[in-house]
Amino acid sequence: MMGRAYLVGAGPGDPKLLTRRGAQLLRRADVVLHDALVDPSLLSLARRAEIIDVGRRAGEARWLTQERINRLLIELTRRHAVVVRLKGGDPLVFGRGGEEALALARAGLEFEIVPGVTAGVGALARAGIPLTHRGLSTSAVFVTAHDADDPTREEEWGHIARMGGTVVVYMGGGRLRAVTDRLIRLGRAAETPAGVIESGTPPTQRVVQGTLADIAERAGDLNGPALIVVGEVASLHAQLDWVRGGSLAGRTVVVARARAQRSWIARALRQL
Amino acid sequence: MMGRAYLVGAGPGDPKLLTRRGAQLLRRADVVLHDALVDPSLLSLARRAEIIDVGRRAGEARWLTQERINRLLIELTRRHAVVVRLKGGDPLVFGRGGEEALALARAGLEFEIVPGVTAGVGALARAGIPLTHRGLSTSAVFVTAHDADDPTREEEWGHIARMGGTVVVYMGGGRLRAVTDRLIRLGRAAETPAGVIESGTPPTQRVVQGTLADIAERAGDLNGPALIVVGEVASLHAQLDWVRGGSLAGRTVVVARARAQRSWIARALRQL
Repeated sequence: MMGRAYLVGAGPGDPKLLTRRGAQLLRRADVVLHDALVDPSLLSLARRAEIIDVGRRAGEARWLTQERINRLLIELTRRHAVVVRLKGGDPLVFGRGGEEALALARAGLEFEIVPGVTAGVGALARAGIPLTHRGLSTSAVFVTAHDADDPTREEEWGHIARMGGTVVVYMGGGRLRAVTDRLIRLGRAAETPAGVIESGTPPTQRVVQGTLADIAERAGDLNGPALIVVGEVASLHAQLDWVRGGSLAGRTVVVARARAQRSWIARALRQL
Repeated sequence: MMGRAYLVGAGPGDPKLLTRRGAQLLRRADVVLHDALVDPSLLSLARRAEIIDVGRRAGEARWLTQERINRLLIELTRRHAVVVRLKGGDPLVFGRGGEEALALARAGLEFEIVPGVTAGVGALARAGIPLTHRGLSTSAVFVTAHDADDPTREEEWGHIARMGGTVVVYMGGGRLRAVTDRLIRLGRAAETPAGVIESGTPPTQRVVQGTLADIAERAGDLNGPALIVVGEVASLHAQLDWVRGGSLAGRTVVVARARAQRSWIARALRQL
């Protein structure tokens, strides 16, 4: 009588960036437990399902504890065939999905982990900032701003500051200055290019460009979740801002698809 | 008469892990330029398209240079409405997609970047290894094995070795011992849990668990691309190996979906 739980990454906000496997499971779901930040249009895929918002209890200000979410997930999986736990980004990247998976495993239940596009990848793609780029950065570190001023993490942040590659700081909105101050104090050059990407669905997304020294002031007040990107790659945003460049996109494009074009491709390949 | 280029991340191997946006664009594509590692079933989505393998020239041993791929992408986008550049994983994570986007931008062409699940996220999900996990790791660094013995990267690798979080090394197959030796020499404890995940489609995927000291010997010869994961999180594979645990999955699950269940959920939520 027991079912299976699916820990599904919803991706970085835009509902089109859910995986095909994630969409398939939502359509089959009997129950969906979702976080607060999941796009409502994804939930409409789950036509058969009971939808439970575990990001916040409906009508109440207090949040379910992680322990209670784990218990709910277990009880639901004992009673339903297809239980989807839909989490923002990827379930195993700063998502506490590992704890949920461990709870399921310890309860003897079957589960599947369906990865998603994590914000550190998806928001950067949206902003036109390569996570890595030849000659600029060949390593990237993901960390969260939650512990930006935790003194027990001083040594770890020192290595992050001095590593020299791309640094992506999740959930950096409210603690932007704590993050930038610490990275500068621990050895990252103040003039290093930096960007702040406010997440959310594409039309509301905002990208601010600056340096480690001035990005907190430039960004000002942030609404909702945001990412901070520090590293030479952040300077590429000006050239690769395809969303803003995409304002030309309304024009009509008519392309004749003729045999001639196919032979052009063959010719071009020979000439390259 | 000019079209638009779409740099699309194909995800970590399993074709179901392509995003919905990526699938939509493949269906609309006039031309698809793809890497060698892209799953053939993804190309079958592109029914209207001319398919060009730029990972390797058909029937020839030599590879197209990046410069030539950039030129081909530009010329095709000048002639076709929808040009999809399909890249393994995510286009901007160790994929040289940033260089392709810059070439398009400099040519005055429109483009869109469609992120994908990068191997460092997708292969870990498959292996049941959380990238981050409370109490074990609150940071993660991505690097490639290409420069595992590059002396000019000694300082950067020193910070990576001593940071203390999760270290994910891309394309580590052939250079596994160079990677593990360097991390130990630069200060990561030899007994740190480590895992090797051979990528590819799910049935051929292999996960080897060990420590930084013995993982190279345990993994033995690797076929094709692989990832190395170093950090306490790698020890969770034994508990979270849902793919192997999933061998029980053949059994039939029949769940009655009755009103009674819905009221059970409401009751459970009240009691939590």
